[in-house]
Amino acid sequence: MMNKCLMLLALVALGTQAQTRSYSVLSTDAAQKMVAAGLKQCTKDGYHVTVAVVDRSGVLKALARDELAGPHTIESARKKAFTSASMGVNTTDMANNIADKPALSGLRDMHPDILILGGGVPVRIDDQLVAGIGVGGAPGGHLDQACAEAALKTLLK
Amino acid sequence: MMNKCLMLLALVALGTQAQTRSYSVLSTDAAQKMVAAGLKQCTKDGYHVTVAVVDRSGVLKALARDELAGPHTIESARKKAFTSASMGVNTTDMANNIADKPALSGLRDMHPDILILGGGVPVRIDDQLVAGIGVGGAPGGHLDQACAEAALKTLLK
Amino acid sequence: MMNKCLMLLALVALGTQAQTRSYSVLSTDAAQKMVAAGLKQCTKDGYHVTVAVVDRSGVLKALARDELAGPHTIESARKKAFTSASMGVNTTDMANNIADKPALSGLRDMHPDILILGGGVPVRIDDQLVAGIGVGGAPGGHLDQACAEAALKTLLK
Amino acid sequence: MMNKCLMLLALVALGTQAQTRSYSVLSTDAAQKMVAAGLKQCTKDGYHVTVAVVDRSGVLKALARDELAGPHTIESARKKAFTSASMGVNTTDMANNIADKPALSGLRDMHPDILILGGGVPVRIDDQLVAGIGVGGAPGGHLDQACAEAALKTLLK
Amino acid sequence: MMNKCLMLLALVALGTQAQTRSYSVLSTDAAQKMVAAGLKQCTKDGYHVTVAVVDRSGVLKALARDELAGPHTIESARKKAFTSASMGVNTTDMANNIADKPALSGLRDMHPDILILGGGVPVRIDDQLVAGIGVGGAPGGHLDQACAEAALKTLLK
Amino acid sequence: MMNKCLMLLALVALGTQAQTRSYSVLSTDAAQKMVAAGLKQCTKDGYHVTVAVVDRSGVLKALARDELAGPHTIESARKKAFTSASMGVNTTDMANNIADKPALSGLRDMHPDILILGGGVPVRIDDQLVAGIGVGGAPGGHLDQACAEAALKTLLK
Amino acid sequence: MMNKCLMLLALVALGTQAQTRSYSVLSTDAAQKMVAAGLKQCTKDGYHVTVAVVDRSGVLKALARDELAGPHTIESARKKAFTSASMGVNTTDMANNIADKPALSGLRDMHPDILILGGGVPVRIDDQLVAGIGVGGAPGGHLDQACAEAALKTLLK
Amino acid sequence: MMNKCLMLLALVALGTQAQTRSYSVLSTDAAQKMVAAGLKQCTKDGYHVTVAVVDRSGVLKALARDELAGPHTIESARKKAFTSASMGVNTTDMANNIADKPALSGLRDMHPDILILGGGVPVRIDDQLVAGIGVGGAPGGHLDQACAEAALKTLLK
Repeated sequence: MMNKCLMLLALVALGTQAQTRSYSVLSTDAAQKMVAAGLKQCTKDGYHVTVAVVDRSGVLKALARDELAGPHTIESARKKAFTSASMGVNTTDMANNIADKPALSGLRDMHPDILILGGGVPVRIDDQLVAGIGVGGAPGGHLDQACAEAALKTLLK
Repeated sequence: MMNKCLMLLALVALGTQAQTRSYSVLSTDAAQKMVAAGLKQCTKDGYHVTVAVVDRSGVLKALARDELAGPHTIESARKKAFTSASMGVNTTDMANNIADKPALSGLRDMHPDILILGGGVPVRIDDQLVAGIGVGGAPGGHLDQACAEAALKTLLK
Repeated sequence: MMNKCLMLLALVALGTQAQTRSYSVLSTDAAQKMVAAGLKQCTKDGYHVTVAVVDRSGVLKALARDELAGPHTIESARKKAFTSASMGVNTTDMANNIADKPALSGLRDMHPDILILGGGVPVRIDDQLVAGIGVGGAPGGHLDQACAEAALKTLLK
Repeated sequence: MMNKCLMLLALVALGTQAQTRSYSVLSTDAAQKMVAAGLKQCTKDGYHVTVAVVDRSGVLKALARDELAGPHTIESARKKAFTSASMGVNTTDMANNIADKPALSGLRDMHPDILILGGGVPVRIDDQLVAGIGVGGAPGGHLDQACAEAALKTLLK
Repeated sequence: MMNKCLMLLALVALGTQAQTRSYSVLSTDAAQKMVAAGLKQCTKDGYHVTVAVVDRSGVLKALARDELAGPHTIESARKKAFTSASMGVNTTDMANNIADKPALSGLRDMHPDILILGGGVPVRIDDQLVAGIGVGGAPGGHLDQACAEAALKTLLK
Repeated sequence: MMNKCLMLLALVALGTQAQTRSYSVLSTDAAQKMVAAGLKQCTKDGYHVTVAVVDRSGVLKALARDELAGPHTIESARKKAFTSASMGVNTTDMANNIADKPALSGLRDMHPDILILGGGVPVRIDDQLVAGIGVGGAPGGHLDQACAEAALKTLLK
Repeated sequence: MMNKCLMLLALVALGTQAQTRSYSVLSTDAAQKMVAAGLKQCTKDGYHVTVAVVDRSGVLKALARDELAGPHTIESARKKAFTSASMGVNTTDMANNIADKPALSGLRDMHPDILILGGGVPVRIDDQLVAGIGVGGAPGGHLDQACAEAALKTLLK
Repeated sequence: MMNKCLMLLALVALGTQAQTRSYSVLSTDAAQKMVAAGLKQCTKDGYHVTVAVVDRSGVLKALARDELAGPHTIESARKKAFTSASMGVNTTDMANNIADKPALSGLRDMHPDILILGGGVPVRIDDQLVAGIGVGGAPGGHLDQACAEAALKTLLK
């Protein structure tokens, strides 16, 4: 019977396919949980940071900043999240990949919200890119990334 | 049998509901058709305009400008589309509604892409807001709106 | 004995008074609770909004956006919070107060983050201005404000 | 014989019509002459101004500022020129036309270079819009406009 | 003998007149004194403000902000100073003059640093415009202006 | 007889030469065809991109974005097109040429719309620069460029 | 007895700890003294500079510019101060540390007010970061830094 | 006798020294002549450029753009002029000096109008910095600089 259902679904989909496509987006509740988890991990590690989650269109979904995190961390966290969501990349990998390729430094100038610096990770669910998370404020991109990855774990529960 | 299918679907949906939500977005193909149709209508009416379509996140999807439309029309068309997609409003109605309410003029300052001026129309398919279309360049908001509405008709074909 | 303590404190304070002053700032934990509470209230009321809290310096502290709130609500919520924190005002009152005073419309141009539109409320603890909260997305400033006030209640618990 | 020539031209034009259109643009030499003439007139009238000429795409072509004209006049002159070139309007007329139509105040927000204030005049040659000129700094839009019109006279010589 | 000196001077001046003009600008020392005096007056009046002085080119010369003045006051004070220096006007008078003239509201859009709101005063020495001072943060433009005028008195000592 | 025609034309041209110059600009129809062709090629190649065409003044003429192309691609495509139109260069060549010349890195800061990164190609018709096309979103400038070049082919038909 | 006092204080603090935290911020008076001292040192050294002090939130507190310091020094001084206050770093050290690490050049793009160039120093009192000071205009970051350090000495008196 | 005159002048100067300083600024007439001369030289050399002159405060004084110079040249010429006037440097020398000093690349981020790229030259009269001139559009900074230097010659006539 499942087959018939899928067939029906296929037909329904077909009808709207011409004009619309369907997306999965991270829920606000999940975004808030990720932000809280990332902040908790960095606080535990002894770092004052901002954690931001943006949807796949790069629009901010949830953010929180530690009392002692500097004002620049709001933008650094948000931009790292934007970069991961818009390009589907881990910003630490990207920063390393272009470090010795000056012909690619234009990548930094593509858009005002692009930030190629460790601490941004794409969020995928069922192999679909649904958001991006960014952390800023720790003394090193790998430290920011560790908190972003801790936040991703909340999606597995 | 359809009921059972819907039931199955409900179960599937339930599983991901906690972390994701599903969206319908206008296809790029449909967006390009709308832009071409809006431009064609205004050209027929004797106006030089820009027509823009943005997705429900306000991100530009398709745009075209008449050779003789002034450079300001790119932003006016895009912002009208953004306003209709982000607020779910017809900008002509909104402009009239707040015209005599100075306490609401702050609405113009909410976001740099908000433009409360006739010519922007929300795009809905199956009662879902999936995009916004904006037209700029005709000598009157109602004239811009007429071209936006002509573009919407392409979705009914 | 308390008097002696206060006396001691006074002396300690005196020593640093010349060069520093002391502030109370809202904790990040409290800011996140406020954002969650404001979002919950508006969802219950049937509105899709963004809720933002900024510290008294106007720097973002916590933010969350409903999946269906338009992208413009991020800026409208943040700016309302900024305006309430920086000016120490309820933005609904301010919007009404200047509505019929065109000589004061320059207030709208003071700073790019000022937004004089209902939905922003100053956050005070022990008579000290410690933050600002802003809500954007409901169809009316008074509706946005109701969610901001619900959020303030979390501070009384 | 002229007819045959025009016929030939028509054929030539036809060949490229599909892909290109032809424009007339004001020469840089003419733009500089206009700027000098406008500045001379305002100096004679006793006003310290900036005079700017932009092409029909709104891109600056020539500008000169009196030693005693305030820094804001660079932008006010350039924006008036942009507005006249992009919309094909006299900004004094436009400012008067929308003064009592609050539903049209959105026109001020269409583009960052739009300035609806007296002193901007479209430049037409052979009925073609080829540029815009703007003057800023005189104590009144009509005074700025008088200098812009004096500049236009240089095109008749 | 003085006559001969003046004659010599005239000749010297004549030589450079063609290519340069001479300006008087407020000294930094005087600007700092004005800022301190304006801040002192507002503190005495019980208001938390920012006081800014810009030179006749609108470039910031000196600024100070009270610990409790909101972040928006930096821009409001600086812009009022810019407006007074660039236009040579008292911003309170200007705000009142255009309040009932919607055709002039474009004046607010001339330049991003123009702010037509009470609290900005031009600084003149020997009938020459040498700077502008602006105050922001008091609950009323006339209160801001009173502090700006107290600052001007330091120039008479 | 053609010679006489050209002679007549020369005389006509001479009359207006002093004040105007003539330009060829890409038609909007051709721009839309190029955008559609570039998008089609990249989709065929398996890449999600934005394709943009700007006129020789750098003003956007037509744009389309694939549903799955990130939001940053709008600006990267538009800026590559601007750079090719304004500088008359192939951005891949330029990026390679300046890669090892740090003294030239200031070229990246000339204008906010300059983007020196592969994927932008100038559009010439009859040896005249009439527009620029840019593609963004493929995992490599040469891949973006391939789609831009496929789009150029539509002009040869 | 002191112990009992501290105990009482602890209890008081505990009560508000949940919702607020306490900060020390540099007084405006101290900020003005620092600016004057920094300017005096650079003038003595023969350099024309701007000196700026921002609070730990990066908001400008006091600034003064030498008559002959270029207009760019306002932003360079303010941004150096912002960077030192927001990141808690000496900008000379930071500039040297990242000079040979291209993977870290993204640090320059984190926020528009970040400037990684010698001349910015964090201001600490009782081991607390309370502000940042920046100097711009001397022909070398170490020379700007020397004036910033001279300014810090005013806090020890 | 001149000595006595200078003595008298010294006394006069002394009186106002406390509050004002005197400047020499380039006349608008001289600025326009420089722009015309620079444009003429580049046209003669076969390059399509924009030439801009700013006063010592970095405010635009005169500008002209060749019909075929790209839109980016307006900003590149103006910024080179700003950099030369504000820093008192030849931008070609500066670009070469910092090319191999990554620790100094922050100089590029000091201010949005700073452009460290060949083609900007400071304008000095009687050893006083009175303005800056910048040229943009030639295929090489040294070629832009040659036109700027040709413009400087007009000051010697």
